[in-house]
Amino acid sequence: VGRPRLPDSPFWVEPEDVEADHLRLGAEESHHLLHVHRAREGAPFEATDGRGRFYECVLESAQDRAVGRIVRTTEDQGELPRGLELYVGLPEWRAVEQVIEHAVPLGASAIDFLPCERSGRDAIPASRLARLERVARAGIKQSRRSRLPRIMSSESLPILLKSLGPGDRLLADPEGRPLLHEITTSSQLPVQVAVGPPGGFAPEERRLLLESEFRPISLGPSRLTTETASLAVLALARNSLLRSKL
Amino acid sequence: VGRPRLPDSPFWVEPEDVEADHLRLGAEESHHLLHVHRAREGAPFEATDGRGRFYECVLESAQDRAVGRIVRTTEDQGELPRGLELYVGLPEWRAVEQVIEHAVPLGASAIDFLPCERSGRDAIPASRLARLERVARAGIKQSRRSRLPRIMSSESLPILLKSLGPGDRLLADPEGRPLLHEITTSSQLPVQVAVGPPGGFAPEERRLLLESEFRPISLGPSRLTTETASLAVLALARNSLLRSKL
Repeated sequence: VGRPRLPDSPFWVEPEDVEADHLRLGAEESHHLLHVHRAREGAPFEATDGRGRFYECVLESAQDRAVGRIVRTTEDQGELPRGLELYVGLPEWRAVEQVIEHAVPLGASAIDFLPCERSGRDAIPASRLARLERVARAGIKQSRRSRLPRIMSSESLPILLKSLGPGDRLLADPEGRPLLHEITTSSQLPVQVAVGPPGGFAPEERRLLLESEFRPISLGPSRLTTETASLAVLALARNSLLRSKL
Repeated sequence: VGRPRLPDSPFWVEPEDVEADHLRLGAEESHHLLHVHRAREGAPFEATDGRGRFYECVLESAQDRAVGRIVRTTEDQGELPRGLELYVGLPEWRAVEQVIEHAVPLGASAIDFLPCERSGRDAIPASRLARLERVARAGIKQSRRSRLPRIMSSESLPILLKSLGPGDRLLADPEGRPLLHEITTSSQLPVQVAVGPPGGFAPEERRLLLESEFRPISLGPSRLTTETASLAVLALARNSLLRSKL
């Protein structure tokens, strides 16, 4: 069997389980560290609270719950310099899961699945959103990020637009132009990207988005699914945010 | 039931089934057009041969095989101005399928799954490559492209590098810098991107790639899976190729 491999992803810790220089993992995470990884007292491990804190720890007590002494705390480990919000026309469930799986490591700070005219389905109910949040949490750990994105399903596009905070807005649109320098270096506002459901935004939805200052950008000459377009536009926005720091 | 919806994706036609101004679909595609879409004589449809030709047709004969009169032929419909080749460290099967699913619409002209030190598995056998080619073919149709990418699984990275043709080379690498203007407008060479297997390229593999002039580019501060990194770097390269045409 040999020596157990040390975990290379952080564990999840609830903010209320962190006190000064110690933290205590929940039952499931403790089981994983102590029994799957068979960590012993003195073993190093990492944890994140999903709210921007990332802890390097040393295992101090391995009875029942894992208790770690905090050696170092970093803020915003693995995070982008600005928020990156995805507003995506609600596709079928498998595509929803794929969007979460890729958008979380790519740095999304919020993901909103919007029931659109061509979605042909209602907003995602709370029970299923909870399931998606668990997928997102796993993604945060695997990608070594430290902020859990908000996972939402707004009632409709018009309702979303009425309450949407300020941001640099991009719309994946066949009639747009390739992304060039749309994302400025000076702003601290989030980047907000909109991607249509399968079949695209309906004309009236598109008009609303353009009126709300979503700038149309083209993702190229071939037709992309909702999930591929979502990942492509997030990858572009992510790269722009990183370049703007150079 | 109402009127059957006209297909919004091209059908597949073998190059040898195209003659002057007519083409004949194979058995499976004919069934789809005539029985699933219930197309009648005079109905418009599209077809591609996967080698760069895209045909607009009118259905002329609907008996047994669908025969269409070619109204218009375009070259390289949905294609990028340059080749875009992905060399990816072989991951598990589900990730392989995800790479194909997203890389084909994003414009990949070749996809090579390389067994690497950390892949822990051999090259994909021919029978499974044939299955992936069918997935790629479906992707070409759905994305309205016209060139089927080559799907390969080279024996090893050193063997690949010995035979690799010239290109603009990018390596997804945590120690790189964000992609800026690495892709020049002047070249006609393909863009060749390399992405490591789960766990990344081993040091010796990375050294070989850098020696072969793969330029390291960073995909950001969080850790990406092989499949997410593949899509992200393809999306960036794609956008660079489109921008270079502006």
